[in-house]
Amino acid sequence: MSTTAVRDVAAVESFVAGRWTAPRGETTTLLDAATSEPVARIAATPVDAATAVEHGRAVGGPALRALTFHERALLLKQLAQHLQGRKDLFYELSARTGATRRDSLVDVDGGIGVLFTYGSKGRRELPGGHVLLDGPAEPLGRGGQFVGQHVYTPRRGVALQVNAFNFPVWGMLEKLAPAFLAGVPTVVKPAQQTAYLTEAVVREALASGLLPEGSLQLLAGGARGVLDVLGDQDLVAFTGSAATAQALRTHEAVLRGGVRFTSEADSLNFSLLGPDAVPGTPEFDLFVRQLVTEMTAKAGQKCTAIRRALVPSALVDAVVGAVEARVAEKVRVGHPQADGVTMGALVSLRQRDEVRSRVGDLQRSARLAVGDPARFDVTGADADRGAFLPPLLLVAEDPWRPEVHEVEAFGPVSTVVGYASTAEAVELAARGRGSLVGSVVSNDPGVVRDVVLGVAPWHGRVLVLDRDSAGESTGHGSPLPHLTHGGPGRAGDGEELGGVRAVRHFMQRTALQGSPRALSAVTGTWVPGAPRRTPQRHPFQLSLAELRVGDSVESGPRTVTLEDIDRFTELSGDRFYAHTDDEAARANPFFEGRVAHGYFLVSLAAGLFVEPSPGPVLANYGLEDLRFLTPVSPGDAVRVVLTAKSIAPRVDADYGEVRWDARLLNQRDELVATYDVLTLVAKQR
Amino acid sequence: MSTTAVRDVAAVESFVAGRWTAPRGETTTLLDAATSEPVARIAATPVDAATAVEHGRAVGGPALRALTFHERALLLKQLAQHLQGRKDLFYELSARTGATRRDSLVDVDGGIGVLFTYGSKGRRELPGGHVLLDGPAEPLGRGGQFVGQHVYTPRRGVALQVNAFNFPVWGMLEKLAPAFLAGVPTVVKPAQQTAYLTEAVVREALASGLLPEGSLQLLAGGARGVLDVLGDQDLVAFTGSAATAQALRTHEAVLRGGVRFTSEADSLNFSLLGPDAVPGTPEFDLFVRQLVTEMTAKAGQKCTAIRRALVPSALVDAVVGAVEARVAEKVRVGHPQADGVTMGALVSLRQRDEVRSRVGDLQRSARLAVGDPARFDVTGADADRGAFLPPLLLVAEDPWRPEVHEVEAFGPVSTVVGYASTAEAVELAARGRGSLVGSVVSNDPGVVRDVVLGVAPWHGRVLVLDRDSAGESTGHGSPLPHLTHGGPGRAGDGEELGGVRAVRHFMQRTALQGSPRALSAVTGTWVPGAPRRTPQRHPFQLSLAELRVGDSVESGPRTVTLEDIDRFTELSGDRFYAHTDDEAARANPFFEGRVAHGYFLVSLAAGLFVEPSPGPVLANYGLEDLRFLTPVSPGDAVRVVLTAKSIAPRVDADYGEVRWDARLLNQRDELVATYDVLTLVAKQR
Repeated sequence: MSTTAVRDVAAVESFVAGRWTAPRGETTTLLDAATSEPVARIAATPVDAATAVEHGRAVGGPALRALTFHERALLLKQLAQHLQGRKDLFYELSARTGATRRDSLVDVDGGIGVLFTYGSKGRRELPGGHVLLDGPAEPLGRGGQFVGQHVYTPRRGVALQVNAFNFPVWGMLEKLAPAFLAGVPTVVKPAQQTAYLTEAVVREALASGLLPEGSLQLLAGGARGVLDVLGDQDLVAFTGSAATAQALRTHEAVLRGGVRFTSEADSLNFSLLGPDAVPGTPEFDLFVRQLVTEMTAKAGQKCTAIRRALVPSALVDAVVGAVEARVAEKVRVGHPQADGVTMGALVSLRQRDEVRSRVGDLQRSARLAVGDPARFDVTGADADRGAFLPPLLLVAEDPWRPEVHEVEAFGPVSTVVGYASTAEAVELAARGRGSLVGSVVSNDPGVVRDVVLGVAPWHGRVLVLDRDSAGESTGHGSPLPHLTHGGPGRAGDGEELGGVRAVRHFMQRTALQGSPRALSAVTGTWVPGAPRRTPQRHPFQLSLAELRVGDSVESGPRTVTLEDIDRFTELSGDRFYAHTDDEAARANPFFEGRVAHGYFLVSLAAGLFVEPSPGPVLANYGLEDLRFLTPVSPGDAVRVVLTAKSIAPRVDADYGEVRWDARLLNQRDELVATYDVLTLVAKQR
Repeated sequence: MSTTAVRDVAAVESFVAGRWTAPRGETTTLLDAATSEPVARIAATPVDAATAVEHGRAVGGPALRALTFHERALLLKQLAQHLQGRKDLFYELSARTGATRRDSLVDVDGGIGVLFTYGSKGRRELPGGHVLLDGPAEPLGRGGQFVGQHVYTPRRGVALQVNAFNFPVWGMLEKLAPAFLAGVPTVVKPAQQTAYLTEAVVREALASGLLPEGSLQLLAGGARGVLDVLGDQDLVAFTGSAATAQALRTHEAVLRGGVRFTSEADSLNFSLLGPDAVPGTPEFDLFVRQLVTEMTAKAGQKCTAIRRALVPSALVDAVVGAVEARVAEKVRVGHPQADGVTMGALVSLRQRDEVRSRVGDLQRSARLAVGDPARFDVTGADADRGAFLPPLLLVAEDPWRPEVHEVEAFGPVSTVVGYASTAEAVELAARGRGSLVGSVVSNDPGVVRDVVLGVAPWHGRVLVLDRDSAGESTGHGSPLPHLTHGGPGRAGDGEELGGVRAVRHFMQRTALQGSPRALSAVTGTWVPGAPRRTPQRHPFQLSLAELRVGDSVESGPRTVTLEDIDRFTELSGDRFYAHTDDEAARANPFFEGRVAHGYFLVSLAAGLFVEPSPGPVLANYGLEDLRFLTPVSPGDAVRVVLTAKSIAPRVDADYGEVRWDARLLNQRDELVATYDVLTLVAKQR
């Protein structure tokens, strides 16, 4: 950043309460990472955070909460499709931040990919309505009329993102997707240095017309004062330095105001080469390749990059040699859009100087083995005007000295640390005092188990790389939307992503207690013990539009005969002795003689509850949580009670899912079996 | 507390690194709540917190982690049984804190109940080994050799409890149980005022000989300096005032040291009377009875007590009258062990004076309607020497004035707040800015739904009380081990209990990525795609001692004929048209003609994989996650692959659970169905 006010570039605008607003007051000019040409201007203070937060709460929240989980998920998918068509614009701006095309793929395509994943997971793994159940209903009393059920409901505030400069697209979208799905409006506060790219994506997202008013707003400028306006239902999700995280964490709004604060901070991630992975093994090559990739991607400006390469002491020289060779062969530093360049610029000259200074700190106990920050080639750009650095590999002189475990050079910098045993390596990894990610490169299951379980308490993610996974592995540095991103201790002790797990972070978990009738009224899901209704038609003859939670059919009894059991034995081929040999069955601790096959009971139950003629029920696509509770002996009479438990119309098909509670009882009213039957049912008859 | 040093009572000792240690330095004398007689002495500063923490990490942690979840759970059950036999001693000491026998039941029996629940849930709901899986394995690539799996592993530090004075037994045990189950050693720092009772329980717990060395330690004294010695793997679980919570939250160890901090703070809980619940309805009586109970139990010294009684404006007088009558009829204040007394003393004279002062604050905008802090009868004790107060019910003059929503009088005090509509009531409830619990007393499902969903984002627990649940309800003020305890915002935004949910708080969630082989090696659970082994015997002939995860049997194919389908139709009675009518089946969007019954496929699969003769497999007790993926038409040939997925010997039986992965494939190698088969298998042949 330069403090000279240059007037010939556009200012990054804020989007607040439905309007784009130019900054008031002084602006700072943002420079191209590779050329130092002005790219945009940005305000010191964002426009009117209070209005944005109030608008989000008053307009965005209600609009999002009016949609079901599935409707929100479908919007995310459509938003992803829309942004997909605008990528070239984003790539162009991304290059100004120093990113190569490959770096931009991680940021731009990676961010859009998060939307796709949440669009898909939201429809597959979240319920159809507005309340997310957490676990099953649990009896709290003996009579069945006092039951507990945990639920998640959306927090009623806004989700404020305070983002880092390095992933201006992904960083926004990976926080937006789960908040949106949860029903919580987002206010984005991007890092100033790369805010012009975030602004471009927000413009396109809004232009799509898909997002409910107030569900996405942008505050361009510094973070000062932004937290002041937050209250007890708001959240802050911060990504950046540990120092800033600490400052925000002690803000009045967080300490006393009830704001929920999570952070994801830089960390000293490790990658370990197993003792088995000597030169010549696929794992040795995988380790070296991954290390060089992590040093060079985004010019090493990734909070997940490998900072510590833990290597058996005997293999340190081999690793250094292999890294040196690979860097020489594959890495070309320069203008991110110049031909042949594989590694771009750091985001700014200030950032480059900062990294040089940190490398100096590391050199107190490590020697520079590959690369020289003062001498290197730059392709397609003026080396003095761009924020360039070459990949720098150090070797720790004493693995226990603190610098390598504490100093983060946020650039193309890693340090090789020799270890004597895997137990020692685990201890060294833990010296990072909490990291986002570690990786273990080994083909030895014993090493993998010991190291992974040893380091897991200090790590949010652990990647195991071996010859089997190499072909599909997404690599050490890539958080995936399916997996949690965040780490304990120094890494901020926060969690993002991880599929539906992240959606929950934007919601409040509440334990409900009450009668099954009351809980069913709240959750829209039938709870055992709640009233059942016998509709005039068989419930299989009711469309989604007609069926109600609690609609039920009871049928039977059917007496199970010895002949039935024999016929089922013949037909299924299941001759397990408990069904065929009275004496052997008696010797089993659970049976008093021959019993019916469990699968026969489930089959005859279907015979009892199924309505045979064509109707809205299209298929039985599965069954869950089946438990056989009381054995059925010949002569026992079994009946079944089937009750509609939950109804979830699909947003993109003319049918939906109905889950039925099935209970089989015998003539003594003992529960024989319980399970959920999963069916697809047409929306209309 | 008195600052006079009295030498004739024993000092509360600390238990650190395996030894009981008397306090060094000055002590304070703790007085009987009802009589002001000295009960015990306590140190200003605990003995050697650093040693306790170090011992917990070095000895307690490894000892606990060496046990499986089930072994830890069994110890909790046995500990509960042991303490059960020592209750009279605890009741006696509990009375010195001002608690009636009924109050003691909540603290002592309630605490032991938590141990029983975790002892039982730990064995039922946690796996047999050392790693807790979180969700299923998820494919991360198309080839099946890159998979994700979230796991929980125990944090490697200690769990420091900083507890409140009001539940010296329950408060300790409700935090101990999930930490113990997680494999994390506990250091208890009880509130000074009632630490002698906590000490007595710790002595008995240690005397049981059940607890691994270092898994439970006690620090008697003030909290000063205790956090200084904590590091990045330690946790603090705090219960007490919001002010203390804030102070601890900004401690260096928490802000910069990576200590995980959770808090449960006092809150302004509400109870709402529904508009339908007019005098004469069961719900009106339930509301009044519950309100009086919550005012008088523990003399109102419960963080979950009802502070705000939200009542339709028109019913305020009726509620006040009914409360007055019930108090007159049922409540007798006095020495907790005196005959006829139903409400004991507050914990100390200081606490009584504090409550009086807070009532004064409330009176700025509310009038005292029932009870007079200056004039009331005391049974069996000297009113001036005991910390007595009568139940005090106020009525808010303006429901929107801040005092009633912000001032917590931590004694037998509630305020009636009139509301005009349920929407207004929801808004009033939210004015508490985050509470532990709310209750809704109504028989109208619409009111229940609107209020519960309206207040849920501000509440950790919501109880619905109606005529159906009344007989079994445990009441507004009782956290249950099954349900989460904690609330957002002002209530501290922490969570305790909630069954296995709390166990996870003491562990680190880590996202693992790698080949199925690598992940299976780490988790001890077979992951699809990992190597399978075909043992020499059929796996159903292997005992738990012989069977290995990954042991597998593949059998079939069996060609499904039209005759099979017809016979199954006859035998099951399931005449669904897709199995019986080719033309109708064709009209269904999912089928191309008649298909086999799903339950027939599961049945014939059992016929293929079951070993019929008696052996270690005792029973199939259930089935989970069944999905029918490809329909089977007549002529298709189905085979099955069954693989041992996880093995969990029971700690208290001569058998255990084996979960098998079942995959059915057709002649085109398409997956027909997948599910888990649950069996009981003997430990020995």
